[in-house]
Amino acid sequence: MDLSPSRRLEEVLGKARGLVEELEPLERVVLGGSFSAAADELEAARARAREIGLWLPQMPREVGGLGLSVLEHGHVSEILGRSPLGHYVCNCQAPDAGNMEILHEFGTAEQKERFLAPLLAGEVRSCFSMTEPDRAGSNPVWLETRAVSEGDDYVLDGRKWFTSGADGAAFAIVMAVTDPAAERHRRATQILVPTDTPGFELVRNVPVLGHSGDGWASHGEVLYRGCRVPRAHRLGEEGSGFAIAQARLGPGRIHHCMRWIGVAERSFDLMCRRSLERELAPGEPLADRQTIRDWIAESRAEIDAARLLVLDTAARIDRDGAKASRERISMIKYHVAGVMLSVVDRAVQVHGAYGLTDATVLSWFYTQERGARIYDGPDEVHKGVVAKLALRRYGPRSD
Amino acid sequence: MDLSPSRRLEEVLGKARGLVEELEPLERVVLGGSFSAAADELEAARARAREIGLWLPQMPREVGGLGLSVLEHGHVSEILGRSPLGHYVCNCQAPDAGNMEILHEFGTAEQKERFLAPLLAGEVRSCFSMTEPDRAGSNPVWLETRAVSEGDDYVLDGRKWFTSGADGAAFAIVMAVTDPAAERHRRATQILVPTDTPGFELVRNVPVLGHSGDGWASHGEVLYRGCRVPRAHRLGEEGSGFAIAQARLGPGRIHHCMRWIGVAERSFDLMCRRSLERELAPGEPLADRQTIRDWIAESRAEIDAARLLVLDTAARIDRDGAKASRERISMIKYHVAGVMLSVVDRAVQVHGAYGLTDATVLSWFYTQERGARIYDGPDEVHKGVVAKLALRRYGPRSD
Amino acid sequence: MDLSPSRRLEEVLGKARGLVEELEPLERVVLGGSFSAAADELEAARARAREIGLWLPQMPREVGGLGLSVLEHGHVSEILGRSPLGHYVCNCQAPDAGNMEILHEFGTAEQKERFLAPLLAGEVRSCFSMTEPDRAGSNPVWLETRAVSEGDDYVLDGRKWFTSGADGAAFAIVMAVTDPAAERHRRATQILVPTDTPGFELVRNVPVLGHSGDGWASHGEVLYRGCRVPRAHRLGEEGSGFAIAQARLGPGRIHHCMRWIGVAERSFDLMCRRSLERELAPGEPLADRQTIRDWIAESRAEIDAARLLVLDTAARIDRDGAKASRERISMIKYHVAGVMLSVVDRAVQVHGAYGLTDATVLSWFYTQERGARIYDGPDEVHKGVVAKLALRRYGPRSD
Amino acid sequence: MDLSPSRRLEEVLGKARGLVEELEPLERVVLGGSFSAAADELEAARARAREIGLWLPQMPREVGGLGLSVLEHGHVSEILGRSPLGHYVCNCQAPDAGNMEILHEFGTAEQKERFLAPLLAGEVRSCFSMTEPDRAGSNPVWLETRAVSEGDDYVLDGRKWFTSGADGAAFAIVMAVTDPAAERHRRATQILVPTDTPGFELVRNVPVLGHSGDGWASHGEVLYRGCRVPRAHRLGEEGSGFAIAQARLGPGRIHHCMRWIGVAERSFDLMCRRSLERELAPGEPLADRQTIRDWIAESRAEIDAARLLVLDTAARIDRDGAKASRERISMIKYHVAGVMLSVVDRAVQVHGAYGLTDATVLSWFYTQERGARIYDGPDEVHKGVVAKLALRRYGPRSD
Repeated sequence: MDLSPSRRLEEVLGKARGLVEELEPLERVVLGGSFSAAADELEAARARAREIGLWLPQMPREVGGLGLSVLEHGHVSEILGRSPLGHYVCNCQAPDAGNMEILHEFGTAEQKERFLAPLLAGEVRSCFSMTEPDRAGSNPVWLETRAVSEGDDYVLDGRKWFTSGADGAAFAIVMAVTDPAAERHRRATQILVPTDTPGFELVRNVPVLGHSGDGWASHGEVLYRGCRVPRAHRLGEEGSGFAIAQARLGPGRIHHCMRWIGVAERSFDLMCRRSLERELAPGEPLADRQTIRDWIAESRAEIDAARLLVLDTAARIDRDGAKASRERISMIKYHVAGVMLSVVDRAVQVHGAYGLTDATVLSWFYTQERGARIYDGPDEVHKGVVAKLALRRYGPRSD
Repeated sequence: MDLSPSRRLEEVLGKARGLVEELEPLERVVLGGSFSAAADELEAARARAREIGLWLPQMPREVGGLGLSVLEHGHVSEILGRSPLGHYVCNCQAPDAGNMEILHEFGTAEQKERFLAPLLAGEVRSCFSMTEPDRAGSNPVWLETRAVSEGDDYVLDGRKWFTSGADGAAFAIVMAVTDPAAERHRRATQILVPTDTPGFELVRNVPVLGHSGDGWASHGEVLYRGCRVPRAHRLGEEGSGFAIAQARLGPGRIHHCMRWIGVAERSFDLMCRRSLERELAPGEPLADRQTIRDWIAESRAEIDAARLLVLDTAARIDRDGAKASRERISMIKYHVAGVMLSVVDRAVQVHGAYGLTDATVLSWFYTQERGARIYDGPDEVHKGVVAKLALRRYGPRSD
Repeated sequence: MDLSPSRRLEEVLGKARGLVEELEPLERVVLGGSFSAAADELEAARARAREIGLWLPQMPREVGGLGLSVLEHGHVSEILGRSPLGHYVCNCQAPDAGNMEILHEFGTAEQKERFLAPLLAGEVRSCFSMTEPDRAGSNPVWLETRAVSEGDDYVLDGRKWFTSGADGAAFAIVMAVTDPAAERHRRATQILVPTDTPGFELVRNVPVLGHSGDGWASHGEVLYRGCRVPRAHRLGEEGSGFAIAQARLGPGRIHHCMRWIGVAERSFDLMCRRSLERELAPGEPLADRQTIRDWIAESRAEIDAARLLVLDTAARIDRDGAKASRERISMIKYHVAGVMLSVVDRAVQVHGAYGLTDATVLSWFYTQERGARIYDGPDEVHKGVVAKLALRRYGPRSD
Repeated sequence: MDLSPSRRLEEVLGKARGLVEELEPLERVVLGGSFSAAADELEAARARAREIGLWLPQMPREVGGLGLSVLEHGHVSEILGRSPLGHYVCNCQAPDAGNMEILHEFGTAEQKERFLAPLLAGEVRSCFSMTEPDRAGSNPVWLETRAVSEGDDYVLDGRKWFTSGADGAAFAIVMAVTDPAAERHRRATQILVPTDTPGFELVRNVPVLGHSGDGWASHGEVLYRGCRVPRAHRLGEEGSGFAIAQARLGPGRIHHCMRWIGVAERSFDLMCRRSLERELAPGEPLADRQTIRDWIAESRAEIDAARLLVLDTAARIDRDGAKASRERISMIKYHVAGVMLSVVDRAVQVHGAYGLTDATVLSWFYTQERGARIYDGPDEVHKGVVAKLALRRYGPRSD
């Protein structure tokens, strides 16, 4: 398995690097103010991404994507991850990227036409409504939201939160319990719910470490109250909700972990630059201090090792499939999140008070990426998975 | 040296505990929204603090304070520190507490009457204007802001930031260079500047990790442009600015470090409660997980050890003075900040996504207390001080 | 609670400091070679300890000890702990100190005369035989060694290891199961077994990280094979073995933890001295490097905080008893062991290859003190105890 | 760059795995006792290695080696590193492997015949004599040992230590100063010194954490006193000592770092097995504890990431040469040593007291591999190198 980018991919990466650098002024608008305030500029940047061939890097060619392997998309995701806007501008941002994947793989022709097509075109956004305030997010099979079958419809009732990007989305994919009596992995079903359906209520954008955000950059609390949609909005068969969620896990994990590598690299750049520029006294830059150099050296090693771990995992998914790679898919979650947050924290410390202001992207990373150790399963859950699989190799006793 | 509270102090602490608990609903208003939005309730809480004898715990009895020793005020500060509003409500909040101390010790009778009296009464707020955007905050003797003597006046020019609480303050104590040619510790002077002086311009409240804040809960960027004040506004003699700043360092450090212990204890409470209440599956609370228990046990030990270190330092200041205790005064800065931030981070992780929302005080601690490793000298500076003093005991070679 | 030493105690500590310094040349003999090789010098050092009033610091005056409180003995233990020979020379070394305590508190008049008297006099040594190779040491109630009652005798059968100091001991206190059917805390009994009893077989001194050791400085594997002793050798009533072991836990823990503080302080001294003396290039001592200074500063803070935690725990035991202090007695175990081992490791790193040789006491600390995180209950067990007790304060659910 | 082993290499690795497993009983002899005690069995194992085609994996085919790339030898080194005897048995152990490399690349025909040939044949051993007790090992250009030119001879005077394997070696390669006045990287020269030369005196095997060792498994202190060898014993030109040492650095680093990965993997195996076998109470294996599972999961991730980092570095050396890869060659030194020592420490803790005995190879790893953070440049030096090179990318200011 060769982990380095091919010459063709290098070209894509070069263009992505250029695009991401162009986004820097736009970042300031979005981070300091609001997502919608930058709507026009973002639209222009999206047009540019399309123009230079960076649109939908995660999708197959037949639907207008770049047709990259998981490994290749991993490389792209790192570059885009250097900016909080990178993925959005190329239309491969969570949760839309995952939703596209689900629709592409499990959607009916009608669902694809109505829901997937405008998503691919970047005309609408979507959200994924799974986590519930009253249930531990780390246990995805324990949900309360119900979808009751009534005639040709499902009627949904329940409360969700951390439904990212619900604000302004055209539709949600909702994970709801269709059969409470079923085996726990077969209880829930994924259902498409247009956000203009009566009974779909965006209660608020949950403030995350001080940012309520708006538009795509928000985490909605959504109330489903007698929310009725046709049974034809069901994805896959009844009870397949968890299985479908699992299916998208591998590529999605690579997407996130490489994005975090991008976050770490951007923070590393900022740390190095600041340490060279900032003087403690005339002629004494921070970069002369051994402690700062230790941080730079430790960060460099940790990032390089973590990147290889993710790329190697991506290559395994390409070769062996996600299921065979699940030990690694769990492993990179906690390992890379930890590395990223360490590097961000060191970069903040090097910047001093300046690093806490909204003048650099570090404050965004410090607050908005803390969730990396929590969403999609907290560290503790993934460590449990890895240990269980690792121990299996040594004997029967291991659950 | 006995570090435990006396019976008399226990009574004060009991009242402080009660007051701080009453502040919880108010916290939500301030943290979620703004400081000024809660102005009336805060005024009421201050009245209550006064009424039950918790006003000005840091000041001597002759000016209306509780006349506590540094050690005793340390105990009080821990309790008040459990809430971001605790110190404010008792009028012992930074930076006013430090300013009161400076004015009380170094102010002239006129300065005391005009500036200190209303501060003690809680009628006005003040700010301390030292850190500059273009100079490393970790080198307090390297400043650019000038105060040029012209006749009976000083004319100030320069730019400051992280002038906390500038928004709405009645006056600032400004550290400005009066003699650029002097020995580096004798260059600057502290000068009282009413905020309605022409040439005092609050440019903005600097956003810190997403919070611009307002009123007391803000960090101002201030431009001094030909800002003219009478020479009688000078504190102490010319060139004494750094020495005066040093003088207030000991008690101020105890105040902050015990406040951080309070932050850690509040976070510990939240972590324990959440772990008992939150179930991962029916009948399986988080508190049953060994990893969570490890965090609880490690946090308990680290907090208890750190508290004793601060209290012992406070008792040394009371006994030997701040100068003799400076190794410890530096030591508790990085040690306690580190412990606090570890405990806060573990508490966030135990809460999961909920811990990132503004529903608990943890999000405030996670963002607004990150500065503890930076302001008043970053970890790295204080470690350098401790090592230098420690090495001195082993031989002549140590600077 | 005042944690500082009284003037009277300061005098004792001063003498202890002098004695420990005198031991340095002897350390080299013992550490490099063997314990018995230094027998004469050790005997002379013991005579000196007796002469200057440092004999049996842990015992009450009526049996010839110094009559110190737990807190006071803690202070002494730190000083003695600076040398691996300090406690031995004052006859307060583990496991004899614990055995004296048990015999003093639970022994019959006959047991005291025959076993305790010569121990107090330093004429014999003893050992404590509890841990078994086939049972997890972290679960002290799960033992295999049996003591079967036959007429007026007990007959012991079983295998023990880590019976420290068995080599050359006059007798062992053996923890053996007398009633396998009893409730798990009531199964075992402590029984005095002279080592010349037929059936007591010292199989070997277990090599610990390369040192088999000899005499007191060894960890024996002992086989009990039909080993018959009179029932009068039983300590306390049948089934009280675990309770008696628990009773001695508090003071013993203080003894060990303060000894570890001594180890850390000695290592800190070595680290500082080496960093001042060792040059990386002419005129560039290690002490000029910021990384080294960071380690010094971090170590200084961690040791000072840990010492206060232990002293405060000692004072609580004196005031409230061991049972009421058990959360702390568990807490200091893992906290202080961790701090000690960090400091030792940093000191080794500062010494470079020299720190790995047997030229300094660091190599002894690095190898022989690693057990601190294991013996008397591993970190993990004590963290569990602390978390359980801490959680109890927050609600009924906590076991 | 493809990091996975080719099919041909997989075959070699399979054989290496088998050989290393066969060494386990022999390990116990060597570790517990002495290297010479196992001389015959080691000779037999070497014969076996030769027979199955594992001899000299690091050397080119033309001198009887396996002709592997640096990457390929890295894979082999991991497997051999699982046992402290693995490299020795295949005649690719340090320091002989490095000496062979030097002789092969820089030796004259006569030197090759006299010194290299018997080394390749495994008939003799050699040592590398550079580190001096009175000079910081972390500064290899600051040496005291002199080689003074007298007629056709060099006369060497000086003291070296950590001359590993000096005990029983046929010759030493000695780094000695030939021109003290030269630029600091040009002062020293490497000179071949047969150990039976008058004036070569092996003072002692320096005890490392309690093991003096013997034969290959030892670290000699060597006194050179008027030690006279022909000028024809010089390697390369005068003043090239440091340059030659640098030249061998890349492949040697891969050798060591992959060996450490092997150490970590062996420790991981032991940790997993022990946790499944050891019961804390009947039916409750250690492996059921979440803390143990956390350690397993963290170790798994750290080892996998570190291995990829080393393999990727090896592939870069193969592709771009060692000089172009020096940032990485320094980086893997501290990163992998740290990972290895963490995993070893966790494995010890899982084994409890048993892990401290010499019953498993863990005690050897814990003591003998601590040097990994010190020899060949301590962590601190390599971090400095990496930071310097990393910072260079951001601007001119970086030394």
